[in-house]
Amino acid sequence: MSLIVQKFGGTSVGSIERIRNVAERVAKWHAAGHRLVVVPSAMSGETNRLLALAAGLQEHPDPRELDVVAATGEQVSVGLLAMALLALGVKARSYAGWQVKVLTDSAFTRARIVSIDELKLRQDLENGCVAVVAGFQGVDAEGNITTLGRGGSDTTAVAIAAAIKADVCEIYTDVDGVYTTDPNIVPSARKIDRISYEEMLELASLGAKVLQIRSVEVAMKYGVPVHVRSSFSDRTGTMVVGEEGLESVVVAGVAYDKSEAKVQLVGADDKPGVVAKIFGMLAEKNVQVDMIIQSPSRGGDSRTDVTFTVAKTDLSRVKDLIEDTAKGVGARVEYDTEIAKVSIVGLGMRSHAGVAAKTFGLLAAEGINIQAISTSEIKISCIIAAKYTELAVRTLHEGFGLDRGTGAET
Amino acid sequence: MSLIVQKFGGTSVGSIERIRNVAERVAKWHAAGHRLVVVPSAMSGETNRLLALAAGLQEHPDPRELDVVAATGEQVSVGLLAMALLALGVKARSYAGWQVKVLTDSAFTRARIVSIDELKLRQDLENGCVAVVAGFQGVDAEGNITTLGRGGSDTTAVAIAAAIKADVCEIYTDVDGVYTTDPNIVPSARKIDRISYEEMLELASLGAKVLQIRSVEVAMKYGVPVHVRSSFSDRTGTMVVGEEGLESVVVAGVAYDKSEAKVQLVGADDKPGVVAKIFGMLAEKNVQVDMIIQSPSRGGDSRTDVTFTVAKTDLSRVKDLIEDTAKGVGARVEYDTEIAKVSIVGLGMRSHAGVAAKTFGLLAAEGINIQAISTSEIKISCIIAAKYTELAVRTLHEGFGLDRGTGAET
Repeated sequence: MSLIVQKFGGTSVGSIERIRNVAERVAKWHAAGHRLVVVPSAMSGETNRLLALAAGLQEHPDPRELDVVAATGEQVSVGLLAMALLALGVKARSYAGWQVKVLTDSAFTRARIVSIDELKLRQDLENGCVAVVAGFQGVDAEGNITTLGRGGSDTTAVAIAAAIKADVCEIYTDVDGVYTTDPNIVPSARKIDRISYEEMLELASLGAKVLQIRSVEVAMKYGVPVHVRSSFSDRTGTMVVGEEGLESVVVAGVAYDKSEAKVQLVGADDKPGVVAKIFGMLAEKNVQVDMIIQSPSRGGDSRTDVTFTVAKTDLSRVKDLIEDTAKGVGARVEYDTEIAKVSIVGLGMRSHAGVAAKTFGLLAAEGINIQAISTSEIKISCIIAAKYTELAVRTLHEGFGLDRGTGAET
Repeated sequence: MSLIVQKFGGTSVGSIERIRNVAERVAKWHAAGHRLVVVPSAMSGETNRLLALAAGLQEHPDPRELDVVAATGEQVSVGLLAMALLALGVKARSYAGWQVKVLTDSAFTRARIVSIDELKLRQDLENGCVAVVAGFQGVDAEGNITTLGRGGSDTTAVAIAAAIKADVCEIYTDVDGVYTTDPNIVPSARKIDRISYEEMLELASLGAKVLQIRSVEVAMKYGVPVHVRSSFSDRTGTMVVGEEGLESVVVAGVAYDKSEAKVQLVGADDKPGVVAKIFGMLAEKNVQVDMIIQSPSRGGDSRTDVTFTVAKTDLSRVKDLIEDTAKGVGARVEYDTEIAKVSIVGLGMRSHAGVAAKTFGLLAAEGINIQAISTSEIKISCIIAAKYTELAVRTLHEGFGLDRGTGAET
């Protein structure tokens, strides 16, 4: 008899038939004596439909009003799922974010959860009632409707699990776990049984779409065990847990991300404050900069090159912002959208030397030029030409023995 | 410079293009210096889409959960309309029912408004901001989402007008006012310029779909002038007002209603309590009974016939409820769904004798048999065979001179 939060993605509740399937699955767990909070996403396609309506009215829809519209998708899901449970004779009750309440800050379209009032949920659980809570949404201190950004339902589920001290937060999705890399690219990719929060965080932020980054951060902060598993089978998926209980492997997985573009300021005055000015300006406009590489000015030359990457969707805003500034410091700007970031992630890198060297060697052996590098304690990322993405992922996956389940060779 | 509440129906906000048109109209009033609260319905078709989803999961959807789902239709509308106004440079802010808040009782799917907190609306109006409030929905004292029943947005608009003491509540719809009868049946039907709350109430409850009955009740209670007008033109529509300022006409309009069915208990024991038992049972199950006619028992016979009408949609429930009871009192039950109710309405009936006699005479002259009659101070309703509906409406409309604008002959 456990206390479980179950989150179902948009595909899992994408039709009346599928909502009924989810309800049957929940009913089975309920009948087994578990106490349950269920968090569904909007029906697949619904959020896009709502965003398209908004886009028809304002080129950049007002964030407050966009959240009012977008939040309805999950509200429909919770009502329907509660009905499906009631139809099976399971006591159930739906809640919108504001009803729980899920208190957030006021950063519309990308709000962060401040606190969750667990009172109503506890009452329901005590009464044998399944609480069905809308993911993705909350309410700010002024009573405005907010949303948490794409994939926010994961974060809602994990935050609720933290608030009610659930035994586990199950994330039901259309894949059966976290893989060593994208199986569409590498057929020999293997499902990972257990992975640490830190590794999952790097994989999530590197383009593995299984879990929203924020949800992993929250899980790590509160020590919530997260079980990523398939909504179409009963098989065990991937457990995301603290690193205590893990056997350390050098490389846990290989990720890639084609969503970024490279911006290069060539020949800028190498004076203090130039770089700060540029990135200060971008930060002010909420443009997230990922990698930054500044090459040192060459002997006698007082000019430097600055390279950084941003989301492709931000590129037009970046152009508007930096062209003038670049001219002011005597630099020209070059853009490249045909890039990809390929990364290897693993806790074991901390204690194993030579992982970086091996990575560069494996790519070089295939003639893949590395345009930029960034590293953390447990990851190495390389920017390469987009056309080499699949080749690089396969090379690294095989080179680090991930297809053989070791991930331990250096 | 007036304080105006404007309500727009589902057809008026049925597409992005139409929402933009509504916004332009609102912007024009705003630019002219008026202070505005706007209440849109759900986009046409949306409520039906949501109800169909619910019906796919439960034959009789749970009322609480149904309201959670149904309320999203209006929430989408307010967000989109606020965006459309912002796109035109008009300050605007949307509110769901619970945000205002519109406090209701807990009768899910047909809740009644208890009170409206006008604080936020007043603040917006003072700041030159258009408040866009979701119609049809509210929140009960326990924080559950409620809806007011079909057409509930009219009631929201009028109740807000009462709360903020608006100069007028404008109901924008796809017709240009209230007509003396259905123009589809009688081409010579005329638009009524001014009509009393009492008459409108009778016309509304008799099947003229222009205004929800509850909204007229609220308007009458608080003396809110209601202007029913077209969202597709600037022409003046119909003012619904107190009877002080009205020239009294004998007959204001002719209405008809095909949504009812007739139930007849034939040969029931004529003992005290029999009728009370039947209608008590129906009331308990929330079946609304419209007309009731009990024929006196004939000399020496202790048996009586009881006839009443209910909504066709309630008929199957009525059958389940009364068959046994009817047997218990020795009666057999007959049902007739092929009936219509035709009614004439007018304040002037109070002081003019002979209106009833003239009504019966007009119908008799066309050979239309009257199956049941009910009257109030200002209306006469006759149940007839459904096939004679149009003929009866035309006959009465012409017979009372409504096509000539007099409505005064008796």
